[in-house]
Amino acid sequence: QRSYTITLLPGDGIGPEVISVAKDVLILAGSLEGIKYEFRERLIGGAALDATGVPLPDETLSSAKQSDAVLLGAVGGYKWDNNDKHLKPETALLGLRQELKVFANLRPASVFPQLVDASTLKREVAEGVDLMVVRELTGGIYFGKPRGFGTNEDGEECGFNTEIYAQHEIDRIAHAAFKIARKRNGKLCSVDKANVLEASILWRRRVSAIAQEYPDVELSHMYVDNAAMQLIRNPKQFDTIVTNNIFGDILSDEASMITGSIGMLPSASLGASGPGLFEPIHGSAPDIAGQDKANPFATVLSAAMLLKYGLDEGKAAQRIENAVLDTLNKGLRTGDIYSPGTKLVGCKELGEEIMKSV
Amino acid sequence: QRSYTITLLPGDGIGPEVISVAKDVLILAGSLEGIKYEFRERLIGGAALDATGVPLPDETLSSAKQSDAVLLGAVGGYKWDNNDKHLKPETALLGLRQELKVFANLRPASVFPQLVDASTLKREVAEGVDLMVVRELTGGIYFGKPRGFGTNEDGEECGFNTEIYAQHEIDRIAHAAFKIARKRNGKLCSVDKANVLEASILWRRRVSAIAQEYPDVELSHMYVDNAAMQLIRNPKQFDTIVTNNIFGDILSDEASMITGSIGMLPSASLGASGPGLFEPIHGSAPDIAGQDKANPFATVLSAAMLLKYGLDEGKAAQRIENAVLDTLNKGLRTGDIYSPGTKLVGCKELGEEIMKSV
Ligand SMILES: CC(C)[C@H](C(=O)O)[C@@H](O)C(=O)O
Ligand SMILES: CC(C)[C@H](C(=O)O)[C@@H](O)C(=O)O
Repeated sequence: QRSYTITLLPGDGIGPEVISVAKDVLILAGSLEGIKYEFRERLIGGAALDATGVPLPDETLSSAKQSDAVLLGAVGGYKWDNNDKHLKPETALLGLRQELKVFANLRPASVFPQLVDASTLKREVAEGVDLMVVRELTGGIYFGKPRGFGTNEDGEECGFNTEIYAQHEIDRIAHAAFKIARKRNGKLCSVDKANVLEASILWRRRVSAIAQEYPDVELSHMYVDNAAMQLIRNPKQFDTIVTNNIFGDILSDEASMITGSIGMLPSASLGASGPGLFEPIHGSAPDIAGQDKANPFATVLSAAMLLKYGLDEGKAAQRIENAVLDTLNKGLRTGDIYSPGTKLVGCKELGEEIMKSV
Repeated sequence: QRSYTITLLPGDGIGPEVISVAKDVLILAGSLEGIKYEFRERLIGGAALDATGVPLPDETLSSAKQSDAVLLGAVGGYKWDNNDKHLKPETALLGLRQELKVFANLRPASVFPQLVDASTLKREVAEGVDLMVVRELTGGIYFGKPRGFGTNEDGEECGFNTEIYAQHEIDRIAHAAFKIARKRNGKLCSVDKANVLEASILWRRRVSAIAQEYPDVELSHMYVDNAAMQLIRNPKQFDTIVTNNIFGDILSDEASMITGSIGMLPSASLGASGPGLFEPIHGSAPDIAGQDKANPFATVLSAAMLLKYGLDEGKAAQRIENAVLDTLNKGLRTGDIYSPGTKLVGCKELGEEIMKSV
């Protein structure tokens, strides 16, 4: 029997509800494939702020580092919205990413055939969209120095940040993206702003250099403004997209909204070694927290990514993915993906139904 | 009779064709309102590169500066795509913006009822969209220093840029945006990434401070990743959007694609004083250049913005806007906006038809 240590970070809002479902599903799928877990539940975000005064307690961080994988629910809520930046729940995410060195953020945006009408895009445009955004997650303008506030020559206040990429940061995310593209449809689109930014010129040069090692992958380059358009005009032209931290933040959210059901979308953040971080792309939805209305699919699919990418347990992952499709096919829906003719259920009941199909 | 000096910059690709139509329309609408022009045609972009070796000759720049307004077609083409950055046609745009100090870039994205089906968004989502992106155009990461290439502590190559905003840069674009919002539906959404970037924290703080002077405008703030989603989910929630240079580049292109007809969309770039710069948001479309297939509407509408925002000649502007609507209502279309049941015409013929309605 294989055994893994998993740190669970339920966080805020609907986080605890969706993590609870995903944990049950993980256990069941694992037990059917000879996998055992030790779960450690830790505080993060607003919950951690309230209990300990900081959004990412040391205890949480050290547990995460010593695990085989980390599964996170969501952080944030109205209560902490006006906190200073270093006391905002969201900073816990940035700290966790940096400390775990998970530089490759995988964000699939797939349209489920059962949910295609939830997209605001026309059916013929949305149908069949299945793309993966590979976002650089531990560099660029999110972490670049110098940053802060200062005064310029005229004694005026300024705010500044540095977009910076070193060669090895680009190289490793490029390798990650080429490998993923290779396992998908063999097409990689690198998105940058090389007509304006030096950081992007280096990005494009390195991605092109590394392409030599992946002759089986077809590489293209696109400016970020054009990519933002093409995602709407014809999202099916994309297979795998690789881009920097800030462009990835924007484009992956745009891509997810194209599917019309962000309650369905998981993500994985991976480093060179050490535990990966897995989480739904949706937020903490404080407006429906604690009401058994949350959609657990995205977190359940994040658990599947945890098994597949984090633990190399493809079979158990496949069980979960199949169970999600079965449950969709049975017509069971939470409120966010409900449509006439389907059956509205709560978070818990949906979890139980998924379990039946694992 | 009022008289104005206009610098025309046809540029590359379809630029000359659409500028030629817009010039005729300008002359006619002007003559009916007692306006005379002196036109100066100058080289820019690839055309300037081929003739003079630089994309933005001094002669062009000084003519532009000494005009009352500048009307630009488009720059760029395959031929110059592999040029070094400072010899790319597009750099002429950056130079022109900086030299003319046109810090406020107005990019309307309106869905024409006649063309709503061209959008990839569902009719009920696209119908009635009428928003304006006010993009900061002469600051931020596009021009911030330090920038360039260097080596880090490990002797590794880096590319870097600086996102920086000083208080007065934010203040003046905020004032411009509030004034525009006031003339529209009184709603302004400021887009930033204040949960991560110090430059955005200052941005949000200054925009909020300046809001005090515009109690009649309803201000909201949104993170850029969320804005990229909301533009797809429900674009009608937006009236006026104000944002920095790079976010504005991405979001305004995204917003324009929502309309489904970027061949229809004009833009204006304005400074505190001096000539404004007016141009269609589409590119040079080298694939159809010289074939009389280009859609001149966007440039014609840019000429209307030139009259309205650049010369304060609202009546002449209105003539042009009405003529565009009349021509659309007559069912005349270029290829990019053609649909069954309408009449396909070339760039020239469409220009002549617009003239009939001015
Ligand atoms: C909450 C925020 C700091 C974060 C980011 O910008 O990375 C979020 O938008 C995300 O994409 O996970
Ligand atoms: C060509 C490029 C430099 C330019 C920009 O990024 O500003 C263009 O995309 C635009 O939006 O006008």
